[in-house]
Amino acid sequence: MRLRRDKNAAEYIEQCSKIIVNPYEYKGRWNEVFHNNNNSLHVEFGCGKGGFIRELANQNPNINYIAAERSETIVYKAVKKIEEIPDNLYFLYFNVEECTNIFEHNEVSRIYLNFSDPWPKNRYKKRRLTHRRFLDKYKIILDHAGEIHFKTDNKNLFGFSIEEFSQNNWFLNEVSLDLHNEKIDNIMTEYEKKFSQQGLTINRLVATPKQV
Amino acid sequence: MRLRRDKNAAEYIEQCSKIIVNPYEYKGRWNEVFHNNNNSLHVEFGCGKGGFIRELANQNPNINYIAAERSETIVYKAVKKIEEIPDNLYFLYFNVEECTNIFEHNEVSRIYLNFSDPWPKNRYKKRRLTHRRFLDKYKIILDHAGEIHFKTDNKNLFGFSIEEFSQNNWFLNEVSLDLHNEKIDNIMTEYEKKFSQQGLTINRLVATPKQV
Repeated sequence: MRLRRDKNAAEYIEQCSKIIVNPYEYKGRWNEVFHNNNNSLHVEFGCGKGGFIRELANQNPNINYIAAERSETIVYKAVKKIEEIPDNLYFLYFNVEECTNIFEHNEVSRIYLNFSDPWPKNRYKKRRLTHRRFLDKYKIILDHAGEIHFKTDNKNLFGFSIEEFSQNNWFLNEVSLDLHNEKIDNIMTEYEKKFSQQGLTINRLVATPKQV
Repeated sequence: MRLRRDKNAAEYIEQCSKIIVNPYEYKGRWNEVFHNNNNSLHVEFGCGKGGFIRELANQNPNINYIAAERSETIVYKAVKKIEEIPDNLYFLYFNVEECTNIFEHNEVSRIYLNFSDPWPKNRYKKRRLTHRRFLDKYKIILDHAGEIHFKTDNKNLFGFSIEEFSQNNWFLNEVSLDLHNEKIDNIMTEYEKKFSQQGLTINRLVATPKQV
């Protein structure tokens, strides 16, 4: 998503109580941010406007949610209607490359990857968020029952991701090539609504690291 | 595929030099049928009219091919134009359940599963040819570099198969959700041509058992 850079964004972020501007400080102690000790932590990497995770956080008040984006401008847009942000949801901006510097070993119970950039050219495949480079990082921060929930409309990215998961010792579950035809609960992202209206089918899977 | 039962089929099969009517006899010595010792053996389970495997056998004279179907009537139809059957291709009819009684450990280098019956109802999922029950049998007959090449138009069967492979220690490669958009060689089956003309996308993957 490209957004016009807002000159007030930086200032706003400093003030905003729902954006953690220095997430490195909280590595290993994210529960302190949420003021609870036993709730599990679910994270969305690439939250866009944040509609998906906001809805999820509303539905599950006993789970701690973090929504992350690379760009501070996008995060700023996502929290603009601050009155709509539930207590159990905070926003961060950082590069997913850095995730092991922000979350401790086993600190995260679930990672959502929704409609990640497909980086269609082969020479950029290392940037795809399901490249084995990233999967190895996710394995570190996920706890023993940890899961990745992945959705995409992009057929190439989905095929690539299945290969990456399978070849790097992850189990695949709930694999669907036409999510909206399944009888399961599904919260749609902004992209998902748009793609679905265009007639594109949505792919989804859940991946869990094999314990070795 | 349903075919009218042909009253002459049984008689024809006895005579036909390209149909092996008692395949159990050849377990562990299929090379004798092909009169060669070092060529690898590739098998299609569910060959239908046999157009795919006939074309493949023509293209690869140094590989031994076996095309299999449950029903003798279908096999009979497949070999009707016997002058079109290459030397390196034979037909069998048997239930895939029996495959470990027909092929020896490590005797097969590749298994093709093309447009297998999706058995859409959950209560029949054990009959799907990619159910773990079958995968365990394939693991026995495949050699150490053995592969399954699987194609289907059916999204549910493809999703199910990915789960089964991933959860039962197979690596997945060449995963495509839109085969006809890829720049790779592909021989189309009779079903595939029909489905593709109807606008359905074709899914494909290659699976290899992990050596444990």
